[in-house]
Parts: sequence; structure tokens; C-alpha cells
Amino acid sequence: MLTLEKFYEAREVLRDVILDTSLIYSKSFSHQTGNNIWFKLENMQLTGAYKIRGALYKVSKLTPQQREKGLITASAGNHAQGLSFAAQYFKAKAVIVMPETTPLVKVNNTKSYGVEVILAGNIYDDAYVYALNLAKENGYEFVHPFNDLDIAAGQGTLVFEILDKLPDTSIILVPVGGGGLIAGVAALAKILKPDIKIIGVEPSGAACVKMSLREKKVTSLQHVETIADGVAVRTPGEIVFPYIQKYVDEIITIDDENLVEVFLDMMEKHKMIVENAGLLTVAALRYLDVSGKNIVSVLSGGNMDVITISSLVQHGLRRRGRIFTFSVRLPDRPGELHKIAGIIAKERGNIIELQHNQFVDVNRNSDKGTELVVTLEAFGHEHKNSIMMSLSQEGYTVNLV
Amino acid sequence: MLTLEKFYEAREVLRDVILDTSLIYSKSFSHQTGNNIWFKLENMQLTGAYKIRGALYKVSKLTPQQREKGLITASAGNHAQGLSFAAQYFKAKAVIVMPETTPLVKVNNTKSYGVEVILAGNIYDDAYVYALNLAKENGYEFVHPFNDLDIAAGQGTLVFEILDKLPDTSIILVPVGGGGLIAGVAALAKILKPDIKIIGVEPSGAACVKMSLREKKVTSLQHVETIADGVAVRTPGEIVFPYIQKYVDEIITIDDENLVEVFLDMMEKHKMIVENAGLLTVAALRYLDVSGKNIVSVLSGGNMDVITISSLVQHGLRRRGRIFTFSVRLPDRPGELHKIAGIIAKERGNIIELQHNQFVDVNRNSDKGTELVVTLEAFGHEHKNSIMMSLSQEGYTVNLV
Repeated sequence: MLTLEKFYEAREVLRDVILDTSLIYSKSFSHQTGNNIWFKLENMQLTGAYKIRGALYKVSKLTPQQREKGLITASAGNHAQGLSFAAQYFKAKAVIVMPETTPLVKVNNTKSYGVEVILAGNIYDDAYVYALNLAKENGYEFVHPFNDLDIAAGQGTLVFEILDKLPDTSIILVPVGGGGLIAGVAALAKILKPDIKIIGVEPSGAACVKMSLREKKVTSLQHVETIADGVAVRTPGEIVFPYIQKYVDEIITIDDENLVEVFLDMMEKHKMIVENAGLLTVAALRYLDVSGKNIVSVLSGGNMDVITISSLVQHGLRRRGRIFTFSVRLPDRPGELHKIAGIIAKERGNIIELQHNQFVDVNRNSDKGTELVVTLEAFGHEHKNSIMMSLSQEGYTVNLV
Repeated sequence: MLTLEKFYEAREVLRDVILDTSLIYSKSFSHQTGNNIWFKLENMQLTGAYKIRGALYKVSKLTPQQREKGLITASAGNHAQGLSFAAQYFKAKAVIVMPETTPLVKVNNTKSYGVEVILAGNIYDDAYVYALNLAKENGYEFVHPFNDLDIAAGQGTLVFEILDKLPDTSIILVPVGGGGLIAGVAALAKILKPDIKIIGVEPSGAACVKMSLREKKVTSLQHVETIADGVAVRTPGEIVFPYIQKYVDEIITIDDENLVEVFLDMMEKHKMIVENAGLLTVAALRYLDVSGKNIVSVLSGGNMDVITISSLVQHGLRRRGRIFTFSVRLPDRPGELHKIAGIIAKERGNIIELQHNQFVDVNRNSDKGTELVVTLEAFGHEHKNSIMMSLSQEGYTVNLV
């Protein structure tokens, strides 16, 4: 049972081990939405995500015999790191099963806590089955990432910190994967402050809790597709689902496209890296029809590979017209590149990349015998359009690529 | 005079306008350095930097007549935004002179506060002279970015917040440009806690305060070169320099190379964007020869263009062996690419970019008639070396580009 006593117990375990992460006020999102928006920075939690809370509480509840025998889980993500940290802290033996496709960086990160990592299966479901079998064979304690009341109670402790700093919170927005976090958050928040509203946020491509609530029973999605890999779950947890039914007021769904936009907002306006799952609650802010309320978005994690960050930045810049690529056909004769370069220079477009391809037309002497593919940095859509217009006005046929 | 009363007055002006930014504990840097490391997050301050503090206090001290007549400054950076915010807040007329080369994004950001922006001069010094002349002609109040005791007092207010949260602070590390921030911080910190140590951090390529302290008088650098543009200053402020002489214990200098490394650390470990000037105090941590102390690094700002971020990430990844480029010469015949691709695949290198150039040798039939230039993603230096080794062992001559 998720009782107040259980949450108190979890809080005692976590005290002095994890960080009481900041709750920061967002001037820009407050201004945009007409509410007072606050961010709970679990992206800056130890291990980079809230998962350490549930894992620490869970391991604290195991007997010395269980810890010595060993724990096991299947995860390539934040739960793996959280549980590894907890195992190291409580000196428990731990085995983490990861899919064979897991990047070595993540494998090494997890190994750095002194746990055993086994690579098995091509996808998560295979690793999961493998871990369950290994648990049965060796008598390991399987620690589920979300379908466990100890885990949910641990995650829920962040509500103490939120209400301590902002007692007058009206709404908490919580990202939803399998439901462990939101079950804990909703239960504790409603116990402490019955009039608070708890809104879950799922990616449109993995909205298993929304569907299950509609069906009034735990229901599996056929197929899951989202860039928010931390919450890409097909089936909510059976054990935590009743708490979600009882305490959660609403579920909002968010398309992947929105996450890219919000990622850049968080970087530019708040100087923070938030992983895609954590961005759900930021993207959801614009869909609330309230005003003047104190609203807390839980930023659940910040673990994003640097190469993924780099790629998201590129996508974001293209969406904002800060980077764009066009192609133009030119006659194959000297001086043509000089003309084009002149137009770009006059418009103050900054060249990032340029390809000059000969032989693109059968007729080398046609007035489009050569192709130029140019990638430019611009100040935004207006500037981009103005550059394209200038090229057109000089008689060139330009196409955005 | 930088008296305690002045700092109290500044604090009253700022209260309820700016954010009392978080002071967060860094587990990873504490572990690395054997101290307790805390970060003061002025990168998450309104306008993205501490500069708003001094600007607000300065404008609050002006008479209604002065505010109506107008203020002016020259800045393409955080001071421009801070002063624009302050002008808007106190309904003062303001003119910001920026060099003509200032990116439109920064121009527009500044304009969004309702101030007038004038583009003048190719470099900052020209814009500065232009602004001074305009001030004389029109009777505008020139607001200097650092050589002003009201400005310094405003900046210093962040010490109240640090000592409030961490009374037992031993050392505060402060980035140093012209000396406004460190003068205010050092004066207030030593007034409140005489045994505290204040260490300034300058880029090696712009260490004008270090030189001036050595020369025992304000001295100009011939030449300034650093990626930390926020502190690229040739001459410290005459008015604030005596306070630096009196209160600052030490200056540490940092090379640009170190900043790139630390930028990635802050992004990966702390999920934060810190601009280069703000990274100085993080890079300096490894040069302290103390242990077990409470040390606060002031992260002065987070305003970094997204395209610059993207470029720093690329540099950082290359430094860490996460991305690398090599060239290899091949015989110009079918099947050669297939062989190379096979070796890369076996080593699990991930291809980012590949150029296949024919005609690089006079003798098309030589065994190096074609060149391949390949950019790969790897897991780090070890993996990179292992890929290079495999190619060598198969008889290819590979060169890192």
C-alpha cells in the first residue's frame, strides 16, 4: 500500500544520499502560459534521473541475505544506473541485463558502479525475459523498473520537496512510462494536499496509460514509437495501475515533433539539457487551460548522449530557419559561382557547406549543366526567405532541399 | 565606496525582481577534487547572466531626469541584455551600441526589451567610442559594464545568497573580465566573512587583472585572444581595481583548450549550458591545492549561441575520440570500398560521413589511385585506436585527418 508512512520511510532512506534538487521558476514559460511555472530539476539528480529514488528505497527493504544473493534487472536506461548506484551504496551484488545493441558508453557508465553487466537479446523485451530467467535460475531478486510499490514510493518522495518549497502548488505535471513515477507522485500529493491536480504526460506514440485508463484495465499497445525512449513502454504496471486510476486527474499526449522544439527552448532559455522523456511535461504546458496557477513540471532526467544532443540541435536549427539547404542549377561556365556567392554575401548568409556538382545534365551546354547544393546559416525564417527571394529575383531556380 | 550599507541597498532593489539562483552541490567535481564543490547558477539568472544585478541597481540610483533623458552603453553581450532589462523595468530610455558584426539574434534579443539598438564600428572598441560620443552629444548617462561602483555593488549581491545557503564557504571562485564582478564579490564576502578566500579566474589570453596586480597599477594588454568572449578585456576598470588589490587573494589563469573539455563535462555530468567565461571557475577547480573545503564556483552566464554549442560539442567529441576522421588510399577497382566497410563494420565503427575521391593519383592504376575520407563515431580513444589498428593490419595505410 502507498501510505503516508511508507513515503516517510522512503524519505528517511534517501535523506543525505540523494540531492534535494532545485525547484526553479521559469520566467519565460510563465509569461508564455499566464501561469507560474516551476521546474523540478530531477535531470540534475545523481545518476541524472529520479530513478535513483525508487531503487535506493527498494534495495533498503531487501534482507541482507537477498542483497548477498544478488539483485537483477533489465534496463539500458536510467533504472540501470539508479539500481547500480543503490547496489553499490548498500553493498549488494547486482546484475544488469542490457540489450546487445546498447552503446558501450552506457555499458561502461553502469559498470563503473561495480555491478555485473550482461548483454543479451537484440531488443529490450528479450533482455527482460533473459533477466527473469536468470533470476529464477540463480535466486536473484528481480527489481522491476516501475511495477513495484517500493519503487513507486521512492519516486514519489520528490513531492515532499516540491510542496516544501511551494506549498501552494496547484498542478504537478509528470512524465508517464510504465506508471511507477506517477503512481508515487499522485498518491503522496493527494494524501498531503487533496485539492492538487496531477496530470500525466505521455508521448502520442506510447500512450499505454491513457489507453488503459480509457479501457478501465491494464492494456498493451501493439506498437510503440517515440523518441522519448525513457517512457517507450507497451504495458503499464499491474500493481501501480490502481493508484493511477484512483489519483491521476488527466493524461495529455505529446507528439515527438514538439519535443525537438522544446529541447531547444530549454537549452536556449534555461541553459539545461533535458532528455526527451523529461521534456514531455514542458511541451504539455501549452495545452493547459488554466491561468494564474502554480504549476510544477517534473523534468525527470537529463541523460542524453552528446551525439544525440548534437543531432537534435541540428534538427531544431533547421526547424527555426537558422540552418537551411538549397540547390540551384547553373550554366557550366566560369564566373557562375562568383555570382551566387555575391548574392549570398550581400544578404549576409553564412555558408556552412557547399557542393558543386558538374555533369548533372545530359547536355553540358544547357543553362542548368551544373548543380550547386548550399547549406547556409541564417537568422531565422524571415532571413532565410529573403535569401531565397534574392536568388529568385536574379533569375535562379532554387529549391529547398 | 563599497560599504555593507551599499550592498544592502542593492539587495533591496533586486529583491523580487531577479532570481535567487540555486547553489547546487556537484558530486562529480567534489569527488574529483577532494573538496565540496558547489555551483552558483547565474547562468540560469534572468537574461542568462549576473549582469542584470549591477544594471538594475545602477538604474535604480539614477534620477527621474536622467532616466527620461536616457542611458547608453556599448555591449554585444550580457551587459547589453542586463541594462536593457533594467531600463525596461524602470521605464528609462536606453540606447545600446553594438558592433556592426553582432549577430542579428543578439540584436533582436536586445531590441525585445524595447530599447534602441545602434550598430556602429567593426569591433567593440569602435562601438565604445561611438557610444561615448553619443552620450556627450545627447546628454545620455553612459553606463559602463564594469568600471562603476554601483555596478560592482549590484554584482556583489550574489554573495548574500551564497553565504545564506552555505555559511561555511571557504573559497569563492569568480571569473574576471574588467573586474566589476570580482570587486563586488570580494568586498562583500570579506566584509561578511573576513577569513574567506576569493580567487579570480582569467583566460590566459586576456589576463589583464593578473598583470595589473603584478605591476601594482592598472595596465593594458597589447593583445587579447580567448574564446571566453565575456571576459576578453584589455584594461581593468580604474575605479574597481583598488578593491581587487585589497580583497582578492589570487588569480588563476586558464587556457582555452581547458574550456572545451569542461564545457562537455558540464553538459554531460550536470546537464547545463555554461558560457565560456562561466566555465573558467570550473576549469580552475583542478588547480587548487586544498582539500575538504567548501568551494563555490560562480557560473557567471549561460548565453552561448546554439551554433557555437554545436561546434563546441563537435570539438569536444573529437578530443575524446568519440568522433574521428581518417583518410586511406585504395586501388581504383571494384570491391575496395566493400573491404574497408567490412573492417569498419566488424569493429562496430559507426559511419558519419564518407567521401570517395577518384583521380587523386597521376597513375590511375597505382595501388593508391583512389582516396577515401571517412568520419566515424567511436566509443573513445581505445575504440578509435583499435579501428585504426585493424585497418593497418589489413595492409592499409591510414592517416588521421
